[in-house]
Amino acid sequence: MTSRGIEILAEAECNVLVRGRTLGRVGVRVGDDIVILPVYYALLEDDIVFRTDPGTKLSAAVLATRVAFEVDNASPAWSVLVRGRAREIRDPDEATAARTRLGHDWPAGDRDSLVRIHVETITGRRLLPV
Amino acid sequence: MTSRGIEILAEAECNVLVRGRTLGRVGVRVGDDIVILPVYYALLEDDIVFRTDPGTKLSAAVLATRVAFEVDNASPAWSVLVRGRAREIRDPDEATAARTRLGHDWPAGDRDSLVRIHVETITGRRLLPV
Repeated sequence: MTSRGIEILAEAECNVLVRGRTLGRVGVRVGDDIVILPVYYALLEDDIVFRTDPGTKLSAAVLATRVAFEVDNASPAWSVLVRGRAREIRDPDEATAARTRLGHDWPAGDRDSLVRIHVETITGRRLLPV
Repeated sequence: MTSRGIEILAEAECNVLVRGRTLGRVGVRVGDDIVILPVYYALLEDDIVFRTDPGTKLSAAVLATRVAFEVDNASPAWSVLVRGRAREIRDPDEATAARTRLGHDWPAGDRDSLVRIHVETITGRRLLPV
């Protein structure tokens, strides 16, 4: 579907695009504010997993509400937006699987909490060249 | 200030980092959801300006609530988060100034609405290498 220079992407293509990247951004409500933070992510089954700092206000907010997760590219210009619910991974086997997928991309920090976003909707668009 | 591999950036450095990029992401509440969309932006005085599709649900939401605006970099890893209120630019001189700053980065589309975010807070962090 195309509208005014924007092509709406099919869900299958959105999934391919998300699988091809490792840096995304999580958006979450914190009170009346919105916080957007970059995260290195991986796919576990069809869910998004990423590391976070345990015990922070952000970490609490991520787990309390629906979150947005975005991946984009500048050229060619496309973006994919995931909406879903997040939960902390507590099962040891699931945590091991998530850590294996994530590898060691994150440069530093004591990021031992693992968050998993169950994808409820995934949408995307591409901006068409003039 | 440094905490667990994360360096909190001073406001002056955040301003420099935001001025050095052109692709950012706007986060806004749309009902109970959060939407994150990439935008090409410029600075007008100390505010963020970008183009948007007029008359969309997103456009209405951006103008109704406080928004978040994020810029990041993968390597070295840093991110800057702006919070502020957005308004549509209606004054013709202001619109011309904004269009001049924005140039023609956006590849396509009938994006005639101009939005200006008045920066209320700007914060940033850098992830330190291990």
